[in-house]
Amino acid sequence: MALVGVSHNTGEGALNILENLLGYGYQGRIYPINPSVSEILGTKTYSSIAEIADNIDLAVIVTPRDVVPQLVKECTDRNIKAITIVAQGFLDASDEEGKQLQKEIDNIAKASRARILGPNTFGTANAFVNFSSSFIKIKLKKQPIGVICQTGVFFAGFSETYFIGKGLDLGNACDVSFSEGLKYFENDPETKVIALHIEGMKDTKAFASISRDIARKKPILALKAGHSEQAANAIQSHTGSLTGKKEVWQAAFKQAGIIQVSDLEELFDLVRTLSILPLMKKPKIGVITMTGGLGVMAIDASKNFDIGIDTLSAKTWRLLNAMAPSWLKVSNPVDIWPIMTISQPVTKPLTDGLEALLGDHELGAVLFIGAAITEKWGASFCQVLNELASVHQDKPLVCSINGPYAGQVIQHMHDAGKVVGFQTPARAINALARLNEYSRLRSRL
Amino acid sequence: MALVGVSHNTGEGALNILENLLGYGYQGRIYPINPSVSEILGTKTYSSIAEIADNIDLAVIVTPRDVVPQLVKECTDRNIKAITIVAQGFLDASDEEGKQLQKEIDNIAKASRARILGPNTFGTANAFVNFSSSFIKIKLKKQPIGVICQTGVFFAGFSETYFIGKGLDLGNACDVSFSEGLKYFENDPETKVIALHIEGMKDTKAFASISRDIARKKPILALKAGHSEQAANAIQSHTGSLTGKKEVWQAAFKQAGIIQVSDLEELFDLVRTLSILPLMKKPKIGVITMTGGLGVMAIDASKNFDIGIDTLSAKTWRLLNAMAPSWLKVSNPVDIWPIMTISQPVTKPLTDGLEALLGDHELGAVLFIGAAITEKWGASFCQVLNELASVHQDKPLVCSINGPYAGQVIQHMHDAGKVVGFQTPARAINALARLNEYSRLRSRL
Repeated sequence: MALVGVSHNTGEGALNILENLLGYGYQGRIYPINPSVSEILGTKTYSSIAEIADNIDLAVIVTPRDVVPQLVKECTDRNIKAITIVAQGFLDASDEEGKQLQKEIDNIAKASRARILGPNTFGTANAFVNFSSSFIKIKLKKQPIGVICQTGVFFAGFSETYFIGKGLDLGNACDVSFSEGLKYFENDPETKVIALHIEGMKDTKAFASISRDIARKKPILALKAGHSEQAANAIQSHTGSLTGKKEVWQAAFKQAGIIQVSDLEELFDLVRTLSILPLMKKPKIGVITMTGGLGVMAIDASKNFDIGIDTLSAKTWRLLNAMAPSWLKVSNPVDIWPIMTISQPVTKPLTDGLEALLGDHELGAVLFIGAAITEKWGASFCQVLNELASVHQDKPLVCSINGPYAGQVIQHMHDAGKVVGFQTPARAINALARLNEYSRLRSRL
Repeated sequence: MALVGVSHNTGEGALNILENLLGYGYQGRIYPINPSVSEILGTKTYSSIAEIADNIDLAVIVTPRDVVPQLVKECTDRNIKAITIVAQGFLDASDEEGKQLQKEIDNIAKASRARILGPNTFGTANAFVNFSSSFIKIKLKKQPIGVICQTGVFFAGFSETYFIGKGLDLGNACDVSFSEGLKYFENDPETKVIALHIEGMKDTKAFASISRDIARKKPILALKAGHSEQAANAIQSHTGSLTGKKEVWQAAFKQAGIIQVSDLEELFDLVRTLSILPLMKKPKIGVITMTGGLGVMAIDASKNFDIGIDTLSAKTWRLLNAMAPSWLKVSNPVDIWPIMTISQPVTKPLTDGLEALLGDHELGAVLFIGAAITEKWGASFCQVLNELASVHQDKPLVCSINGPYAGQVIQHMHDAGKVVGFQTPARAINALARLNEYSRLRSRL
């Protein structure tokens, strides 16, 4: 790959793509282009693209906008077929010059066989080969998650999730489109879930048709941003995209079998859920809770998100009743705390109770609501839940953890990749409700 | 205080109230009652309440349910006026015995001047005197937040917030009620925000009338749990409360000026917002964002939550335009990234831009959307935001932080207590929208 316009400034905050790539341990050959120095970080530099003798697979252009058309021309002259334009100020700019520059690039590209990603993009990322063209150093993690987005923020990540396994920032999407990204992920064995962040697009018909095929094989999540005139204007100066009407998008997603999310948080939750858990065989959740108060909130959420926390099978009911004190009426959610207080060790009813629910064929998924009030209890939850998930691999198991050690437990679950942890019962129930929707869709096909 | 039924088991997981109190550094005198040992953790024990010679302000009863009426009798005989019953299995039980035991307690209490908290409660907590009667060791923090709840989960806390400054778990609420808790917090100088978790109550009229008075002085947040028949049944076996209709509660909250939240997460967010920030003088938000993509999402949220991100004043607009590259059309949200890339130091436009928005009299609050992509940037955000908040103490300043160091920044903001940090723009905008609602309510009074 050729890095056009890479700076000789290095170190924290220098936003140097070459330095990032060396840090990731990327194994491909890199040809930095910078006429003013002979090497950067021990890598020989070149004064122009023409000077590179070898074949180049990818050119990444990180320069001010006005020299971009000329550089694209040099790339196509050298027969480079993939060009990522990081530079900003094209269709995303408010002036005529931006539009004009964009047109020049388009014309050069059309006259060649080159494909262009961007402009105004972080480019691509692939954790499986330690690669990212982002000028921000990102945390790469080999996760089965493919992201196609129109903002670099998905590359930079979020505190609770860095979800780039592989990523494609379309930026202004002047050439490479959502449809083409989807086609790549469709047959990619390293990608289990596809997450889309859409501001707007030109080829909605092709997109809908391709999505319909893929959603039958892999879940596609979509966050459509920009629902109002004001947002449309903001998008105009962000990626120059046409936003389209909210209702039209909703109908299109539904028809295509795409799972639409309402905001970033729901996207985080569902990406984790769909990349880790199996599908739900039945639309019913069994809940074990250490606190009756959160059990009630789980029921509230189940009504809001339209999924059942129903009566348990007779066998499960007998099993749990045998454990309970005489005055306790066992129901679903199962309030396990009064059972724990009369048991030794205190966590034994958790294991027994969860085992009973996971073995109940009437239930499609199991939720554990637990209070991590000591570090030891937190560790014990992690062990119990991971072990149970390993045995019951065909039934989704999630948890909602509170208490001072909740953050640790949720992070551990995330790293172990068998159980999905949430901070509130409502988020856990919502994730299962959406998993259930997708499971029903798949079972109808 | 007398601790009736305290165990001689100590150490992690023993759930020993005495051990917890010694750990908090509680300075009051404690009289543990346990007839089988002579001391626990160096504290002399007593065989019965009658044996204690001194006056007792509070008795906390942690025994199996069947001996509770007798113990309550012993307390009232000794003229103890405050009794907390931690024991479970009364109105929260499914059997007749539970109801019968409850009746006995009520009769004993009525015949005396004693007030009873619970049963089925974690009791009280007060971080300002290092006290909690919870058998779970909680993290006490001197925060201006008063909680009245019907589940101990608020004492145990959550990963992102431990919000007990002072807490009152009503449990089954057989005697001490929401109204009485509110009266305490009304004039408590250490409490700035009151958070309620309600499953049900008897004295709704008194509650509404008291709330109306208090909401004019301090914000009251309410999470009403249990909206369905199924939830009502679960509540019956949790705290034995009558839930009431969703619509009736909504109307009552609105009339009383109480801010109703839809779930735990919104409660966390608003407790932080209302305890830290000043009121909003105008219903309009100014936004500076490092990423156009999240700026668009902030606009979406502003439409959903009904608050304006409108045009800036002419002066602010001129100020920002002078900083921007010629091709950038400055609007609100202000996309600061293209300005940062042409500035030295790169974070200077943040300070200048935020300063401009904070000084704009047309704006009621300011939101900064920032990517903490290096630890240094994160630290720089914290410094800049805290300094600006110290200067502009009359204008709410919040931030939504993404990037790998987002968690650190948000935690730092939380600890510093001047700016409220969120994980997504949607949560930040929602919090400001609700703060605005309360500000409008207060300005009408």
